[in-house]
Amino acid sequence: MRPGEGLDALMSPRSIAIIGASQEATKIGGRPVDLLRRHGYSGHIYPVNPKAALVQGLKAYASVADLPEAPDLAIIAVDAERASEAVEQCAARGVRSVVVFSSGFAELGEQGRAMQERLRLAARNGGMRLLGPNCLGAVSIAEKSIATFSIVLEHSMPAAGALGIVSQSGNLGSYTMRLASERGVGISRFITTGNECDIDIADGIAWMARDPATKVILCCLEACRDAGRLISALEEARDAGKPVIAMKIGTSAAGQAAAASHTGAMAGSDAVFDALFARCGAVRVRSIDELIDLGHAASILLPDRLPKGPGIAILTASGGFGVLLADAAQSVGLTLPELGQQTQRQILELVPFASARNPVDATAQMSSRPDLLAKIMSAVVADERTDTVILPLPFSLHLPRLRSIYMDTLRNIRAQFPHRPVILCVDGPEDALAELHALGFPTVESFDGCCATVAALVRLQAVSKHPQDVPAAVERAQPLAADAFRHELGAKRALADAGVPVLAERLVHDADAAARAATEIGYPVVLKIASPDLPHKTEAGGVVVGVGSEAEVRRAYAQMRDRVATRAPHAAIDGVIVAPMAKGVAELILGSRIDPVFGPVVMVGLGGIFAEILQDSAVQMAPVSEAQAMAMLKSLKAFAVLDGARGRPRADLDAAARAVAALSRFAAAHADTIAEIDINPLLLRVEGEGAVALDALLIPQGKQARH
Amino acid sequence: MRPGEGLDALMSPRSIAIIGASQEATKIGGRPVDLLRRHGYSGHIYPVNPKAALVQGLKAYASVADLPEAPDLAIIAVDAERASEAVEQCAARGVRSVVVFSSGFAELGEQGRAMQERLRLAARNGGMRLLGPNCLGAVSIAEKSIATFSIVLEHSMPAAGALGIVSQSGNLGSYTMRLASERGVGISRFITTGNECDIDIADGIAWMARDPATKVILCCLEACRDAGRLISALEEARDAGKPVIAMKIGTSAAGQAAAASHTGAMAGSDAVFDALFARCGAVRVRSIDELIDLGHAASILLPDRLPKGPGIAILTASGGFGVLLADAAQSVGLTLPELGQQTQRQILELVPFASARNPVDATAQMSSRPDLLAKIMSAVVADERTDTVILPLPFSLHLPRLRSIYMDTLRNIRAQFPHRPVILCVDGPEDALAELHALGFPTVESFDGCCATVAALVRLQAVSKHPQDVPAAVERAQPLAADAFRHELGAKRALADAGVPVLAERLVHDADAAARAATEIGYPVVLKIASPDLPHKTEAGGVVVGVGSEAEVRRAYAQMRDRVATRAPHAAIDGVIVAPMAKGVAELILGSRIDPVFGPVVMVGLGGIFAEILQDSAVQMAPVSEAQAMAMLKSLKAFAVLDGARGRPRADLDAAARAVAALSRFAAAHADTIAEIDINPLLLRVEGEGAVALDALLIPQGKQARH
Repeated sequence: MRPGEGLDALMSPRSIAIIGASQEATKIGGRPVDLLRRHGYSGHIYPVNPKAALVQGLKAYASVADLPEAPDLAIIAVDAERASEAVEQCAARGVRSVVVFSSGFAELGEQGRAMQERLRLAARNGGMRLLGPNCLGAVSIAEKSIATFSIVLEHSMPAAGALGIVSQSGNLGSYTMRLASERGVGISRFITTGNECDIDIADGIAWMARDPATKVILCCLEACRDAGRLISALEEARDAGKPVIAMKIGTSAAGQAAAASHTGAMAGSDAVFDALFARCGAVRVRSIDELIDLGHAASILLPDRLPKGPGIAILTASGGFGVLLADAAQSVGLTLPELGQQTQRQILELVPFASARNPVDATAQMSSRPDLLAKIMSAVVADERTDTVILPLPFSLHLPRLRSIYMDTLRNIRAQFPHRPVILCVDGPEDALAELHALGFPTVESFDGCCATVAALVRLQAVSKHPQDVPAAVERAQPLAADAFRHELGAKRALADAGVPVLAERLVHDADAAARAATEIGYPVVLKIASPDLPHKTEAGGVVVGVGSEAEVRRAYAQMRDRVATRAPHAAIDGVIVAPMAKGVAELILGSRIDPVFGPVVMVGLGGIFAEILQDSAVQMAPVSEAQAMAMLKSLKAFAVLDGARGRPRADLDAAARAVAALSRFAAAHADTIAEIDINPLLLRVEGEGAVALDALLIPQGKQARH
Repeated sequence: MRPGEGLDALMSPRSIAIIGASQEATKIGGRPVDLLRRHGYSGHIYPVNPKAALVQGLKAYASVADLPEAPDLAIIAVDAERASEAVEQCAARGVRSVVVFSSGFAELGEQGRAMQERLRLAARNGGMRLLGPNCLGAVSIAEKSIATFSIVLEHSMPAAGALGIVSQSGNLGSYTMRLASERGVGISRFITTGNECDIDIADGIAWMARDPATKVILCCLEACRDAGRLISALEEARDAGKPVIAMKIGTSAAGQAAAASHTGAMAGSDAVFDALFARCGAVRVRSIDELIDLGHAASILLPDRLPKGPGIAILTASGGFGVLLADAAQSVGLTLPELGQQTQRQILELVPFASARNPVDATAQMSSRPDLLAKIMSAVVADERTDTVILPLPFSLHLPRLRSIYMDTLRNIRAQFPHRPVILCVDGPEDALAELHALGFPTVESFDGCCATVAALVRLQAVSKHPQDVPAAVERAQPLAADAFRHELGAKRALADAGVPVLAERLVHDADAAARAATEIGYPVVLKIASPDLPHKTEAGGVVVGVGSEAEVRRAYAQMRDRVATRAPHAAIDGVIVAPMAKGVAELILGSRIDPVFGPVVMVGLGGIFAEILQDSAVQMAPVSEAQAMAMLKSLKAFAVLDGARGRPRADLDAAARAVAALSRFAAAHADTIAEIDINPLLLRVEGEGAVALDALLIPQGKQARH
């Protein structure tokens, strides 16, 4: 089923049954009944409980079969053992969707997986969509449709707003909802997918992409069970102009281990998530604070006030705040362009002792003279050398006198400059913040958070405007010749057919043939042993470089065969490869492997010391276009080494990008049979002179080492 | 004057005069009068205002001369033009200390500096300490001594507590005080130093180090005007067992530019601040949030509950929280040791479906069954494989039912384990947080903040226990021979005398001498031109390597002289250096320069590509000990390259550290005459075989390029 289909009954139900409804409002089966009634859900509420005539004052039904109508939504709040039966009864009664709160399914192992499969089949056979099991349910704030037992709603109901939250973890989703609501940020929908036996995170995203109440989608993700569905949902949201802001947890080794144990799902390479989000126009954040701040700011600034670039102006009455914000801004990649001469003159005419370059420190004068404030702020906001204006007012709005001065000024600024992004770094009374939001000014509490939000808005604007080109899918290819898996020459021939550049090399079987090949190739040459059993040829004595004459070739050939025979007596030897010596200006390592979630992925990193020490590499789902491959190269920390930094020769980056793209197509085409590909090194010559794969290894499916 | 002396009258005054006292409570001269009265200051308050008989209901005096006694403290709240006269009058009246709020002094340039100097002299001649000008004054919370016009006190007074705040920026200090107080963290003292014409940040730190009310010192710093005083104050605080937590702003280029324009002080290398803090046992943080969270946690955990190491246990009822915290922990260098088998068994017996390794996910069972919670928490806290337990309860304490369960359990845990550090990641009602603090549990709101705080506590514990060895100061040395500044051999001879290893090289003046020298040294050799005018010898054609025989030496000598004469006809030539060829396994770049604030500093970084691309270097105030030099090497991102990573040979690190220490002593001894020293490269041989400086350059004072 296409992501997001069939969720209307879940998210906008006209009637809700609670199976396992409890008299006690704090119990799992009691809380939804209590919340629905307390917050004024306007549809029908049907408690189902065979042992009670009334539940929390509402008529209770002995079973789903007894209900007066087939409800749009049934909440299953019974234990795991009885949940499957309940779902089957719902299917029989014609219920349109179910939420299963119960835990004790796939997260517990084999038996639980079987029970979960029974749920899934019951839902599918009954034509129902199923949320859960082991989830905190779903909420539509404006409609007061509250199919959750989250304790955060026990405290208070969030205000209705434009942010949709979709989370695998119920607690993370709840906590996000609560924090947003504490900061005066309204919520549209809340969906937690738990074990995802039917409805998954992609459904949530895609449904919200079509939901008029949702402008921005916040997504908390631990694992991806189906990369294709996730991509399709993210693309749908992007095409609908709704930013998806993703917090993918399990980034660290410790976090991934915890996530695997928690969700039972495969981890997938965290780096590939980065690549996937970037490709689909989603913006990734690293904390709940960033998730909320960015979601809030985007919802306020969309559609036409997003920052167009990284240049900010800081306007403050405190030099210290200016310095702190400048530090924070630079650390997230924002810039502080010097304001125009005219702007600076205007400021200095008003406050001769101000700093007017940027940050603008208008001194305490600014907040004591409203007329100055209005003029200085106008001058700074008018200057389009910067893309965004940041105004730190950390506590001023709590003081009635200052609040009135600032609010009056900001109202005028909005009237004068309807489309300029101005972000306040502010803590203040709820009603003041609400008015600022209504005027189109996002508010963020902390200095760091404010700069991080602006930087993320710049990324969001960039990905929404320039969706990355995605290469056409690659057809599955015919199986390779057997020698592709036997030795480097076979591997390189296969790769060469796919467009990866290689040297003219020969496989020979005796010293005479080696000498003839070397003479044809031209001296000096390299001799390398060809064996399926010796992936580390050098260690086995199977490589000789700089062989300068026919006599040397004969000698080196014999010595190498002897050496290998001694060191690796049981290795099958396919012959000896004679190759020309090649020189270049840099070395890359290219690779590919099968990610458990994303399928074939392609990697590139600098060779030598950089790869060993800095683990500096980029990874993407295969295939990638040449433009994407170039973006991968540019994302390397040590990219400057390739790009001609400090008087170095510039390497042939175009050739490198072509090789990465060719490898990625090859990997995608052979994903059924090749587990892993290593090209180490890909030698880069100077700009315009190409690249060449000096060594390569293909590992067939079933033989790879564990990653 | 020794830092911190003579501040008692400022911080604990028995009487306060306000010069420029105003009837209006929101004016600068009115606010202190209002605040002192409103909050119940118990000493005498003397408004001084020649135009009023009463100010805010208090008898006003026409001048300082008319006061019935010489007050301990006078607040100067008149404009800059009249401030000097007011300070002089205070001195004449025998006032013991003054706070000058007025701005318009050194921050405005030459004329302002002269006015400020008049203030300073008046205070010194009168035996008064002076705070400011251009500052937000000082506050002692418990004594209600409020010598500030900070607007944050207009809103509410912070609770009295153990954190002292000393800040150059008044606004940053105020904001820190306000945020702390919002989070239920009490304050002891608040000092803002502004232009620091007399009392500086070092005074504030040193005075708080002796102040019984202060347990932890929070320090906001933009610029350092006297490194020696700062070091002495930091050391005094360290020796008193009072952690100094420093937020030094102006870390970025943009921030430094803003700070220079704001304070008028020299920037000083930000990296040297890092080194200085580490050396003096202060812990540096990067944001106001970190400053407050760490200060709070340290004040609660001192003296005997600081984490002993980086291992944490995470105990949660939510798998998602566990994953998020594990990510956050790993990103700040904390580790998650697997809990002991017995601990895991205990947990699994109580909750069979829990994750027990670490993070411990005890599932929702934990918060629904108080008996389980108590047993699981005991088991986790008892397991000393970890150093700290983190308990995330983001919103539970807001719910009375859960609050009572958790608070009961935590009271028991504290009784059972009086010394184990347990930190809560929690948002809750004020009184609940206050009870937790009283029980010795620090609370931090955000997940990231909680892990950052624990990581910083580990650093704090480490620096407080192991103050770094500081080498004895170095005597100023005799001036160097002139050839030290003329060519590399002269420079290397000077460095060799100081203990930096060099090769046996000769300076020759004709081809015969070159040939003789080469024969004695042994072939192959290197020839290098010696000239004060050719710092870049290679570009001038002044280097020939691998010269293999006497004939080759003669030929190379002649050709090199010709080449240099053509390319640099006006260069003075001191001769040609004949040096042995040297091989090693790694190259370092060593250097030294005069920092405008810290004096001579020594730097070390990896040579070649690492220095060029990654700007990977360490810097310290000179001199450094060999242990400190080794710590500098270990702090390099690419240290693994030296340390034998991935099968590389391990370089002679001890020899490298000795060379860095020797260079640093040399730089300190010659700081009056040498502006800059470069050793590039210092060649490192394999472990045990030493290091050698292959090239060196000394730049005398007055000739250096601008940094």
